[in-house]
Amino acid sequence: MPEQQPAFDPERFREEGRAVVDWIADYWASLPSRPVSPAMSPGDVRSHLPLQPPEAAEPLADVLADLDRIIAPGLLHWQHPAFFGYFPASASGPSILGELLSAGMGVQGMLWTTSPACTELETHVLDWLRGLLGLPERFASSGTGGGVLQDSASSGVLVALVAARERATALVTNHAGLAQDERPLVAYASVDAHSSVEKAAGIVGIGRDWLRKIPLDATGRMDVDALASEMDADAATGRRPFFVAATVGTTASGAIDPVAKIAAVAARHAAWLHVDAAWAGAAAICPEFREPLVAGAESADSWGFNPHKWLLVNFDCHALWVADRAALVAALSMKPDYLRNRASDTGAVIDYCDWQVPLGRRFRGLKLWMTLRMLGAEALRNHIRKHVAWAGEFASLVAADPRFDLLLPPNLSLVCFALQAGDDATQSLLDRVNATGQTFLTHARVGGRLAIRLAIGGATTTRDDVLATWRRVADLAD
Amino acid sequence: MPEQQPAFDPERFREEGRAVVDWIADYWASLPSRPVSPAMSPGDVRSHLPLQPPEAAEPLADVLADLDRIIAPGLLHWQHPAFFGYFPASASGPSILGELLSAGMGVQGMLWTTSPACTELETHVLDWLRGLLGLPERFASSGTGGGVLQDSASSGVLVALVAARERATALVTNHAGLAQDERPLVAYASVDAHSSVEKAAGIVGIGRDWLRKIPLDATGRMDVDALASEMDADAATGRRPFFVAATVGTTASGAIDPVAKIAAVAARHAAWLHVDAAWAGAAAICPEFREPLVAGAESADSWGFNPHKWLLVNFDCHALWVADRAALVAALSMKPDYLRNRASDTGAVIDYCDWQVPLGRRFRGLKLWMTLRMLGAEALRNHIRKHVAWAGEFASLVAADPRFDLLLPPNLSLVCFALQAGDDATQSLLDRVNATGQTFLTHARVGGRLAIRLAIGGATTTRDDVLATWRRVADLAD
Repeated sequence: MPEQQPAFDPERFREEGRAVVDWIADYWASLPSRPVSPAMSPGDVRSHLPLQPPEAAEPLADVLADLDRIIAPGLLHWQHPAFFGYFPASASGPSILGELLSAGMGVQGMLWTTSPACTELETHVLDWLRGLLGLPERFASSGTGGGVLQDSASSGVLVALVAARERATALVTNHAGLAQDERPLVAYASVDAHSSVEKAAGIVGIGRDWLRKIPLDATGRMDVDALASEMDADAATGRRPFFVAATVGTTASGAIDPVAKIAAVAARHAAWLHVDAAWAGAAAICPEFREPLVAGAESADSWGFNPHKWLLVNFDCHALWVADRAALVAALSMKPDYLRNRASDTGAVIDYCDWQVPLGRRFRGLKLWMTLRMLGAEALRNHIRKHVAWAGEFASLVAADPRFDLLLPPNLSLVCFALQAGDDATQSLLDRVNATGQTFLTHARVGGRLAIRLAIGGATTTRDDVLATWRRVADLAD
Repeated sequence: MPEQQPAFDPERFREEGRAVVDWIADYWASLPSRPVSPAMSPGDVRSHLPLQPPEAAEPLADVLADLDRIIAPGLLHWQHPAFFGYFPASASGPSILGELLSAGMGVQGMLWTTSPACTELETHVLDWLRGLLGLPERFASSGTGGGVLQDSASSGVLVALVAARERATALVTNHAGLAQDERPLVAYASVDAHSSVEKAAGIVGIGRDWLRKIPLDATGRMDVDALASEMDADAATGRRPFFVAATVGTTASGAIDPVAKIAAVAARHAAWLHVDAAWAGAAAICPEFREPLVAGAESADSWGFNPHKWLLVNFDCHALWVADRAALVAALSMKPDYLRNRASDTGAVIDYCDWQVPLGRRFRGLKLWMTLRMLGAEALRNHIRKHVAWAGEFASLVAADPRFDLLLPPNLSLVCFALQAGDDATQSLLDRVNATGQTFLTHARVGGRLAIRLAIGGATTTRDDVLATWRRVADLAD
């Protein structure tokens, strides 16, 4: 039996940390030569893992060997330069180093007092980011608002929905529970809003059926007249319109809802307006893309996007701003005796556990801070500009090929297209393209048709990768 | 302006990764010589941060210098060997390397198909861990159950509560919403249950007032007779008892609810039984501590604990098992068109996004796997055994000092004590002890009295640290 190694030892960590950093660097270097997606059947990975965990310690080298032998072949390589599916991973080295430092420090940011630097850096960096995106002053921590990091946009919309519910019912629901059988609360989002809105409506007890799915216009944006009609009709029959989620960049096609118009309708009913800019929001750091992305934000109660989707921060990192932080805290605060402390009691500090579902929280602000500092704002802008330009090129190639339909003009770096021959042909083409292992694309429904989506966003994706993907698609289209 | 560095470059990462690993190793080595808690006023950290983010890239060396100058002095050092507050951080080097690898791979585990290895390793390691803890077969993935990793016990109880709500209302709530004004659903937990149970009751629309807080017996455990009376009374008046949370190791005193007896009461009402073993559950890996911790688990619908609390895994890592995974999936599944895929449609795979609130998910299983492999099960048991033994020694010292009351026999590694002179004297002593910077303790209410809590769990804490803390407490008690 090998001598027991200490679990938490600086010198052991120094040595093993280097080996792991090298493994990651080697993995990154290997990405272009790997097939993007694995050829796996259910159970393949588990069939290589022993039935029982080890009683005695095993060396790192054995674990790394198993990463190569068992784990890496079972990965879809989200950071592959030819990954164009879903929304690609958008990690950078600096962000991963921030994640590592957060794990190495091991502090809890639930209360200001449980690590002041964790809370203050997060608040500060979210103020930075608000400025970079051109979001309105109402979201700044210097006023009544402020930003917070959550794991994902799903959690962001969940807490926004709870805050909205409590505002609509004067905190009665939080204590007495919902009564949806009588004057139900009604929420609204477009049919192409992210699934997390409907999921959250189920979780918080509103009920998925009380989320009205508003139809789209011809370009995939919420039909605001339809929204107004639905809200008016609900109000007229005694229901309570209380929440509208506008989508800035739908998952299917990247469509950007007309937020300012939606805001005007929501305001007539005093409904909470949440803007889900999960993917597209990042592009607001470029002045030339900003206007449609942040339009209407000055009337939004909450506005969120994922730096992990397109701003070179590794998953997970959702930035959520609220205009009235007191509304969020009132809905979510829960301070048992053992969390009470003088700093909280003065009201002079932020306790971020009151802004989220979990109590515990990592030092997530570090990775956003390190990304902004070690890359700089201008590099982030150029990163996004390149992708938008390449999507435009790709879309032109699609449009020029008579076998294809470009289903919409590209929204930022997202292109949706299909074969004129119909859905079955499009599905078959997508399968054949992905089977090459040379590129990876996913699908969506756009205007009722099956679409192949090209989402450009990978940290190492080049123009050549985009053009090669087009050639592959075009070659396999016959 | 420095030349722009690529954001995602293997060689840059190799070099900078080493520097960050070294920073962490140096930070760990420095811990014993740092004051445990910072002397900070609100705004101190932010006052050192520039108002605007940088336009151009800054070198890593500048960021690391700011970590030393601005961030580290603003941390409460959760990994300090003399940290005995809350529940100490329980990170190990191997777990942090797992976190780093997860970030380096950058895959999404939302669906099996989005990285089969991510899902299968997680399922597998949770089967391993189930065996190590001696949890019943019903939680194994080979049957109808299975395990999942979440960020925290708060999220674990939230999804359990939603699944319970849907089981009790045959999925009607998920669609039509709650009607708590008429035959309300009622949940139960002890007054010392974790605050996340009450918080979750608010979030999911049950209402915090419909969580009945059951009184404790003299040792801090839920009074099962009182539970039975409350449930019967609610049922008799047409309310619907649907959820009971038993606590295995309360935050205040570590008390372990009599789960088997609670299970019998819950079963009479067909209520969902959730066991929150967030901290104490880890000790079930030691056969000698297991019995009270897993007793009754064979009747539980869900059972969760935090490897990040005492099993040498870094935060965040909550392990949740359910006996009927279909109930969880039915409550939380949400598959828009763009997530549909053949593997999911066959039903032969786990899609973990259906087991949690967020859609996206990290490769969290890696850190648990690496911890188990690189430390081995026996080292984990010995880690826990030492802490329990030292808590016993500390408790004996308290009991032998006539100025102090040992408020309860220690529960595992948690000791609660107070000055006989009363709450004000106890609070003053706690403040003076923490002001030394040489040790860190927090408080709780135990049997109506203010208690000082000594929670042993740090990865580098030694017997000497525990004894020195006692000497400090005893010296300052006059």
